[in-house]
Amino acid sequence: MPEIAYLGPPGTFTEQATRLLTADFDAELVPSDTVPVALAAVRSGDVLAAGVPVENSVEGSVPATLDALTDDDPLVAVKEVVIPVQFDVLAHPDVDLDRVETVASHPHALAQVRGWMTENLPKADVRAVSSTAAAAAAVAAGEFDAAISAPVALEHYPELRALETGVADVRDAATRFLLVRKPGALPEPTGADRTSICAVISHEVGTLADMLAELSLRGINLSRIESRPVKHSFGHYRFYLDFDGHVADARVGEAMAALRRRCDSVRFLGSYPKADRAVASVRPGSSEQAFRNAAEWLAAVRAGRLA
Amino acid sequence: MPEIAYLGPPGTFTEQATRLLTADFDAELVPSDTVPVALAAVRSGDVLAAGVPVENSVEGSVPATLDALTDDDPLVAVKEVVIPVQFDVLAHPDVDLDRVETVASHPHALAQVRGWMTENLPKADVRAVSSTAAAAAAVAAGEFDAAISAPVALEHYPELRALETGVADVRDAATRFLLVRKPGALPEPTGADRTSICAVISHEVGTLADMLAELSLRGINLSRIESRPVKHSFGHYRFYLDFDGHVADARVGEAMAALRRRCDSVRFLGSYPKADRAVASVRPGSSEQAFRNAAEWLAAVRAGRLA
Repeated sequence: MPEIAYLGPPGTFTEQATRLLTADFDAELVPSDTVPVALAAVRSGDVLAAGVPVENSVEGSVPATLDALTDDDPLVAVKEVVIPVQFDVLAHPDVDLDRVETVASHPHALAQVRGWMTENLPKADVRAVSSTAAAAAAVAAGEFDAAISAPVALEHYPELRALETGVADVRDAATRFLLVRKPGALPEPTGADRTSICAVISHEVGTLADMLAELSLRGINLSRIESRPVKHSFGHYRFYLDFDGHVADARVGEAMAALRRRCDSVRFLGSYPKADRAVASVRPGSSEQAFRNAAEWLAAVRAGRLA
Repeated sequence: MPEIAYLGPPGTFTEQATRLLTADFDAELVPSDTVPVALAAVRSGDVLAAGVPVENSVEGSVPATLDALTDDDPLVAVKEVVIPVQFDVLAHPDVDLDRVETVASHPHALAQVRGWMTENLPKADVRAVSSTAAAAAAVAAGEFDAAISAPVALEHYPELRALETGVADVRDAATRFLLVRKPGALPEPTGADRTSICAVISHEVGTLADMLAELSLRGINLSRIESRPVKHSFGHYRFYLDFDGHVADARVGEAMAALRRRCDSVRFLGSYPKADRAVASVRPGSSEQAFRNAAEWLAAVRAGRLA
């Protein structure tokens, strides 16, 4: 049974996400202390793949994931899931809400339920711990009265119960996770795919605008952009881009080749089905058929058969 | 011996240009009354090719050439020459400048020597005729004292002599001529080529800017753009574009395929060596090698061999 690493400890949103990411095959989930450790295990071949948070995480630093993805040998994403950021409030069965005096969780999680806490636990002491799962463990051990945790935590601490479920100040907050592995055969295009890349460009006027124009001119919808300075290389920036489409699509392939020509370097971070399965509307001039027709016309012009 | 049509009559700049355009093969030059007549003779196969003015002409309407090139079956340019707009002042040997009372020429030619006339023939009567060659013919027939003509006219009227040569108010005025024929094998790329196309686009905000971005993003230098309304199709415009490079070049081919996808229609009007032989500097990211490298990288990414 293949082993799949994830950012631990067990009982976090990342475990919950990694279960979903591996739902269609038998896998043993192995918690790692950090994202770099999980990815190193993939690179070394100790595990087949890893589940890592990439966007809006509540439990791990997303920049850490981006850096860990690109600082070493190539890894590619093959699947994504999006988990709603909604917490359970866990406590021992004999503890009711009005008896809760101490509440523990990861600082990011506490930030996401501040409104709920003000309304429901205005007098409780708030304690920051290293993860939402660690909070549940501490409550199970009697250190605090209640934990703000991922729903999956209850499976690891069956002695606790949920005082409240679906707690979240922002209703549609969500975290995106990726299943990453070493380069290999890509997931088939589904018509509702996302492609992730990391491009390094020099810090010159217009460079980024031109880079984005390579996408927009080909009718490619950009869903995320994030810049990070390149370590030890002043004046150069890494741009993490997510956009609609699969590298096997003509418009995406041509755009990526254009970025490869334009940028100092481009790293492919994967083409995979979008979690929401939303089919991107493709402009008439950017469809597979349009690219095929144009290529045939160009070939005929070059051969002197058409004008 | 192949016949080559040109905008007549004999003795004009177009004859002079067509001689240069056909200098590397034996050809019989056949004057036509109009550019459309010359191009119709090419389309019908009566002649092999035609020499026509396309830019800054002093003797024929350039829009007429553009319309005639695109209103009917495809024709492509295979060669260009640029002729300096400098005139001879022709007269009978017994006529000196101070005895010239009447001067004839084509109105465009007269406009180009107005300054010289004011200075040298301030009292002469100026007469507009249908061509610079017709002016020379009329002088030979004794109708006027002097003609403002193309240098080549003297070969047709050896009984005349040049009172003055190299007459031009603007020193670097020039006219560009093309040798056009039916589609067939294209001239080989030389590294200093020009490509001409006609693209039809609808009249929407940003359409033209996006079209030009397809060229600029690929490092292609636009040397001429001219718009003409499309007859019987309100809101659509034809754009005549000349840009550096050969359709066989990777950057030009990809840009043309992009325009083909983007525009309502694109007509290829030829790739041919530039008259000035000026090699365009190609940006590193737009070189043949850069395109080849990017295509190989993309193929490896798509095959899952690289990331």
